[in-house]
Amino acid sequence: MTVTDELLADNARYAESFEGPLPLPPAKQVAVLACMDARLNVYGVLGLEEGEAHVIRNAGGVVTEDGIRSLAISQRLLGTREIVLIHHTDCGMLTFADDEFKSSIQAEVGIKPSWAAEAFDDLETDVRQSIARIKHSLFIPVKDSVRGFVFDVATGRLNEVSATG
Amino acid sequence: MTVTDELLADNARYAESFEGPLPLPPAKQVAVLACMDARLNVYGVLGLEEGEAHVIRNAGGVVTEDGIRSLAISQRLLGTREIVLIHHTDCGMLTFADDEFKSSIQAEVGIKPSWAAEAFDDLETDVRQSIARIKHSLFIPVKDSVRGFVFDVATGRLNEVSATG
Repeated sequence: MTVTDELLADNARYAESFEGPLPLPPAKQVAVLACMDARLNVYGVLGLEEGEAHVIRNAGGVVTEDGIRSLAISQRLLGTREIVLIHHTDCGMLTFADDEFKSSIQAEVGIKPSWAAEAFDDLETDVRQSIARIKHSLFIPVKDSVRGFVFDVATGRLNEVSATG
Repeated sequence: MTVTDELLADNARYAESFEGPLPLPPAKQVAVLACMDARLNVYGVLGLEEGEAHVIRNAGGVVTEDGIRSLAISQRLLGTREIVLIHHTDCGMLTFADDEFKSSIQAEVGIKPSWAAEAFDDLETDVRQSIARIKHSLFIPVKDSVRGFVFDVATGRLNEVSATG
């Protein structure tokens, strides 16, 4: 029995009390882009209910091309108007450098990834980098509320990062 | 007052009962890649608690280059060993085509995105495409448990998709 099988048993319990379907467009017109970190339960952290906000997540909560793709679809096709970016303390992306990570993959499998690993060495600087990437994207139309935060994995609190530093 | 401000008030309530910090590596050694859809509360759907699984999400729950990047970091640096892919019924990605979406952006802002929008017209086929992209990636070392599901937004249930169709 895999962990996946255990999670499916939990899903059966979830479905017992599930009430749906809800509308497709997010009710709060918000898109969140957060790190994939296991300790960052975005629905819990922001008090979100099912149906309220798009949640985009990747390693680091970085604004990548795929993040821009997802945000463009979120705003242009599904009407979201605010963006919330969330990095967090004790992030794995602080623990390595792109060059060493990519070289280790090259040493093991013979091919070096063509993509950036997007490691960073300062949380607030990278939140600002993420805000700047959104502000400079032609493909994201609504930028009135693009705010960035660092989630504290010790306290559960979001601390806002000033866009200008 | 923006919706973001309201979410911050909810965060203060979340932090009041928060117990942390937990370890960085996901306790269940699982990485989930799911659609960003607002109705898909991954922690709820799978009965996950904080600290148990990486959660990667984008428009469609598609295995993009950024998905591969995140999964590679998840397995190689943080020890996850199973992958759960989740698409869902009534997905926004079923409602448009890449060409029209990208042409509409080009018509509006003068530049056509260089990326694929990753729209699809059949859920199960795209889940299989996602499994195949992972199986064929050199950068993801552990592929013993890569399973794909369609979440039913009406019932709350996950329905497994056979990798071979």
